[in-house]
Order: sequence, then structure tokens, then C-alpha cells
Amino acid sequence: MPIIRVEMFKGRTRDQKRAMVKEVTEAYVRTCGGTAKGLSVVITEVDKEDWGSGGELCCDLYPD
Amino acid sequence: MPIIRVEMFKGRTRDQKRAMVKEVTEAYVRTCGGTAKGLSVVITEVDKEDWGSGGELCCDLYPD
Amino acid sequence: MPIIRVEMFKGRTRDQKRAMVKEVTEAYVRTCGGTAKGLSVVITEVDKEDWGSGGELCCDLYPD
Amino acid sequence: MPIIRVEMFKGRTRDQKRAMVKEVTEAYVRTCGGTAKGLSVVITEVDKEDWGSGGELCCDLYPD
Amino acid sequence: MPIIRVEMFKGRTRDQKRAMVKEVTEAYVRTCGGTAKGLSVVITEVDKEDWGSGGELCCDLYPD
Amino acid sequence: MPIIRVEMFKGRTRDQKRAMVKEVTEAYVRTCGGTAKGLSVVITEVDKEDWGSGGELCCDLYPD
Repeated sequence: MPIIRVEMFKGRTRDQKRAMVKEVTEAYVRTCGGTAKGLSVVITEVDKEDWGSGGELCCDLYPD
Repeated sequence: MPIIRVEMFKGRTRDQKRAMVKEVTEAYVRTCGGTAKGLSVVITEVDKEDWGSGGELCCDLYPD
Repeated sequence: MPIIRVEMFKGRTRDQKRAMVKEVTEAYVRTCGGTAKGLSVVITEVDKEDWGSGGELCCDLYPD
Repeated sequence: MPIIRVEMFKGRTRDQKRAMVKEVTEAYVRTCGGTAKGLSVVITEVDKEDWGSGGELCCDLYPD
Repeated sequence: MPIIRVEMFKGRTRDQKRAMVKEVTEAYVRTCGGTAKGLSVVITEVDKEDWGSGGELCCDLYPD
Repeated sequence: MPIIRVEMFKGRTRDQKRAMVKEVTEAYVRTCGGTAKGLSVVITEVDKEDWGSGGELCCDLYPD
């Protein structure tokens, strides 16, 4: 039943997402109990232009 | 004043979204009171690659 | 698979929540397809002190 | 440490986002204390087709 | 129409929340346009036990 | 910079939360890169009365 949301910069590959969903799900079940079945992970990719840190946009802080 | 968020797979038409917003709003007002005015519904479409269930990506579980 | 979140003022009864979850779920399925099974609704009750509208706190705008 | 999320219609320029992140961060720190360092702002741009108000889609209420 | 969410540690007074909602709303309108009317701010207070940073709970990192 | 949110039923101990935050953070870094520093995890505990599944409240589906 748990829902896990991950907000991260754009640019991870599908393989990275696949591994992350698997390992984060396992980490949750190992520590909090329950089963993987019914555990959702929703990924939101955020553009550096849409992420601010310390009052500045990440596209300015970390240009590509 | 209430805010309703809907996360769903990509692929619904504008007509489906229009009907959903109308009927979900009506369902809320009918059961919880208040008026439709001021009730917001925000839709987030999620790619199957960005949705994990039971430790697997939905693009693997439900390929198109 | 869809996830619906509802943010609303504190104060609805369990019966209102029960009816709302049922009718909002039905409204979603009727308009967007799929089945109720696997559709989650998560309710967040918000205190008037924690909700601002137009720059003012709702506990000031709508005192009990 | 605080996290601020802003959901708004699509269409703001990068300069508007930059100014908004700066001024919202400053407003938070001025009123709630702490430092800007470590304060995140995440912007989500929402299409008018994905935003409902009063039971209607904003693309119908406010056509471009 | 915009929705702003603020997640922060528990412990701000009502006066701080009132000032924050007012100034954050003004900062948004000044930089992104529109009017304060219809702009919502939703505050979520998070316990240090429910906030992790760098893999550790904030109740361990910053004990009261 | 990534932000991970976990919504789960009430009732986990502080030790479970501590272990979960540690292992979920490590799982993210191992699969997606970056460092644990700056990665936030925010836990939201949800009452069974506030969680619906398949159109029913979890307090009805899974009574204590």
C-alpha cells in the first residue's frame, strides 16, 4: 500500500530507473515490513530550470 | 478550497479529463459538502517508465 | 493504479470520508476506465491555520 | 531544509522563475527564520488541460 | 490559481505562518503576475522524526 | 538534491524509520548516482481512515 515518490533531475536512463525502483522497494520492505506487492513508486523528473536551491535556479548553479 | 490531485497513466483524451474533473468534483461536493467553486483538480500524467509497482517498472509489466 | 489525493479542511466524519472515497473512485473509473481495484485515495486533512488563500490564513478568513 | 513546491500554469519565462525562486526563498527566510541554504523550490508547470476549477477544465474556462 | 506547498519543521507560530503566507504570496505575484486572489498556500509541518537528510533522521542530526 | 517522499500507514517505530531512511537513501545513490548528502526523505504517516483502496476505506478493509 505504501506510495514512494522520487523527484530527481532529468537524465536517468530506463535501466537506472528500473534498478532504483527495485532496490528502493526492497529497502522499504526490508525495514518497514509488508510485501513489495502493492507498493508504488512514482518518479518525477525535474528540469534544472524548475528546481531552486538556496534561492537560485539549478540551471544557473549547475550548468550542463 | 479543497484540492484534488490525480496521478494516472498518460493517454486519456481531453474529453475523458473533462468528464473526470466534472464527475470527481460533483462526487466530492455531494459527499463532503461545500460548493464546486474553488475546488481545484490537478492532473498529473505519468509515463509507464516512471511508475513502479511491486518493484518493477510498469513499462515492463504492461508493455504497450 | 491511479492515485488520487484529496486535501481538505479538518472536520469531515468517517462516514463522509467513506462516501467520498467510494463516489470519487466510481467517478474516476466511469470516466477514465480501468477498475476500482488498485485505485488509491489518500486524504490529507489541513488545519485552517495551515491553509492560506489570497495571502491570508483561513483561520483568519473563516474563524470557527 | 524546507521544501517549497509551486504548481502554476505553463508559460513563465526562465527569468520569471529565477526571480520567483529568489523572492519566495527570501520571503520564507525573512518570516520563518533559518537560511536560504538548503531551502529547495520545485516548480511544476501544469497544462490548462490538466487543471480543473469548479468542475471545468481551465482550457475551457480560459482558452488561449 | 497557483498552488504553493510549504513543508517545514514543526514549531512555527501562527504569526510566523501568517507573515509567511502573506509574503510568499506577494513574492509570487510580484514575479510571476496574476493576483493574490485564488492563490493557495498549504503548509505541512513535519516532525524531525519524519524527515531524513543524507540518510539520517533529523531527530538524530538536530536533537532538540 | 533528490527528494523522496514515503506515504505509509501509521505505526512504524523510530528505529524502523531510521533504518528505512538509511537504506532507501543508499538504494537511490547506488542506482542513480550522486551522494547521500543533500538527499531528503520526507515521511507522511497516514491513518487507515484516510486511505482508500478500491473505493473502500482501509479502516474498513483492515480493521485493527
